[in-house]
Amino acid sequence: MESITIKDIAKICGVGVSTVSRAINNHPDINKETKAMIMDVIKQHNYIPNNSARNLKRLDSNAIAVLIKGISNPFFSNMIKIFEREIKEKKYSFILQHVDDKEDEIDVAIELIKEKKLKGIVFLGGHFSHPIEKLEQLKVPFVLSTIGTTQKLDKTICSSVSVDDFEESYKMVNYLCSLGHTKIATITAPMDDESIGNLRYNGYISALKNNGIEIQENLIRIMKAELYSYSMENGYAVTKELLESGEDFTAIYAISDSIAIGACKAIFDSGKRVPEDYSVVGFDGLDIAHYYNPSITTIRQPVEEMAEATIKILFDVIRKKKSAQHRTFQGELVIGNSVKSLK
Amino acid sequence: MESITIKDIAKICGVGVSTVSRAINNHPDINKETKAMIMDVIKQHNYIPNNSARNLKRLDSNAIAVLIKGISNPFFSNMIKIFEREIKEKKYSFILQHVDDKEDEIDVAIELIKEKKLKGIVFLGGHFSHPIEKLEQLKVPFVLSTIGTTQKLDKTICSSVSVDDFEESYKMVNYLCSLGHTKIATITAPMDDESIGNLRYNGYISALKNNGIEIQENLIRIMKAELYSYSMENGYAVTKELLESGEDFTAIYAISDSIAIGACKAIFDSGKRVPEDYSVVGFDGLDIAHYYNPSITTIRQPVEEMAEATIKILFDVIRKKKSAQHRTFQGELVIGNSVKSLK
Repeated sequence: MESITIKDIAKICGVGVSTVSRAINNHPDINKETKAMIMDVIKQHNYIPNNSARNLKRLDSNAIAVLIKGISNPFFSNMIKIFEREIKEKKYSFILQHVDDKEDEIDVAIELIKEKKLKGIVFLGGHFSHPIEKLEQLKVPFVLSTIGTTQKLDKTICSSVSVDDFEESYKMVNYLCSLGHTKIATITAPMDDESIGNLRYNGYISALKNNGIEIQENLIRIMKAELYSYSMENGYAVTKELLESGEDFTAIYAISDSIAIGACKAIFDSGKRVPEDYSVVGFDGLDIAHYYNPSITTIRQPVEEMAEATIKILFDVIRKKKSAQHRTFQGELVIGNSVKSLK
Repeated sequence: MESITIKDIAKICGVGVSTVSRAINNHPDINKETKAMIMDVIKQHNYIPNNSARNLKRLDSNAIAVLIKGISNPFFSNMIKIFEREIKEKKYSFILQHVDDKEDEIDVAIELIKEKKLKGIVFLGGHFSHPIEKLEQLKVPFVLSTIGTTQKLDKTICSSVSVDDFEESYKMVNYLCSLGHTKIATITAPMDDESIGNLRYNGYISALKNNGIEIQENLIRIMKAELYSYSMENGYAVTKELLESGEDFTAIYAISDSIAIGACKAIFDSGKRVPEDYSVVGFDGLDIAHYYNPSITTIRQPVEEMAEATIKILFDVIRKKKSAQHRTFQGELVIGNSVKSLK
């Protein structure tokens, strides 16, 4: 079946193309009955109003791409929805591009810029350590959103939105210390991590030190490389091993809520309880941290505000209202039922 | 900064373009030191090997798009990963396109086909009720993946992969009946739903009838339209209302695991327990159903196999090995700790 055109519709209706166009575009200058008749014919013939086709095309030359690492991470779900809403509101089209763990996001971005004539880019999640010469190849404004980086980025060439992963992590571990916990295990990223994992780990170390607690190497546990990082199954596997090792500890600080949930499950499966036997805390503030039983004490990142700020900054730069900006949001310590006070 | 080309690299190295190309492409026919020197220069100048650029371009004319409704639904996360892996393995590029709740997926698909010269499409999730004339405008093979439809689709024009949502739902409710439950509430989709919601609801009704249990209208609860459908918050709100209504029931059958988790939370917040006071079951077999406390009894859909079959069928049709195919997978009743036997 050939696609039907606006000319065919005009012919069937016995009117001119411009009249059909007026009907489609809700133009006031058209007879009501004529419009109704035209819309009927359009419906009967499943004609796709050029409208939407035109929109899509028009939008396509004004595209923003969101490059995401870790598409299955529920932390990003709400952000993606807000990105989409905000970008479409500005009459730009929204391209969601998944970047594989092994892919270089800058290479993907450079290709996308060429292909889609992008006006801007959001990098969401993942590590981010690229030489400045490489970043300079990105000829459009871009924002790093919720990407922790230990690298000294040239703050004039890109914008960023995040929480202070070090400070928030410090806040969480300091909270555990304030309740009398001194034997606090952590489930964290590999030591060569240069991203949020490293920053959150440093917050843990710093909080312990400032509370006069000695660092115990045996309580520092690294996510397993062969399992998805930051996942429930990873938290489960690491905690199972920790429990079986017989180490003495009273609390687990998992650097993500998903890891924390896996840790809880491992504790339950060993016949112990949370928080009566072990306290467990997470990071991120996922919905499931609230819905879990017990609810998980966590650091809530204000994802909605962060997503909105990401797009606002991107458009400020695109429209040359402002140069690169860097916004750090406050996380919120959300007290659940997964921590027992030892005082 | 201008992008550096392969010619520039060749010039700097004092070799021919073909030598640089051999170095990049790991061609055996090149002196080791020359290769090392070239790779050094490439690194220094942050030259993006044409390789990846070429790959991307070549792939782009062989693209498969996955159109997804409900990107934040964790049920789809694992499927997306497998789609991507399988599509890339076949040297096709993978385009993930989010379709808004209010958008018409066929319109989006038609535009994508034109723009990207798609070779095939996967529709993932959502309702699917389009007149055949409209479907015929899709000029490339497509597969409906995990899309329940009550509509009589012309089985020759498209392929499908799913579980039998009616049968699996029947299986779950029949299981509750077998344990002595007769007052089984359900949290389901609006009655005008023409998709999995409707099929799963019919399975519930049919199982009750076949067990000689009278249908109680007051125990049939509909997801709230103002909240995300199939979400934890929706399950929570509906269950809270159900509990406050004072209706007498012993079990809740939620038509998704996320709803079931929200239901559990509402029960906990009312001071009751799962399964001691109320049994709760879900549908889908999400990871979190296993990690939840208590683990949720559910119907596990074999998402990995279904995702693989989706791509296999799509390529069979693209390569004209086969015409449209329809595969129905068996779900698995996974017994968790969220159900109490009343016998």
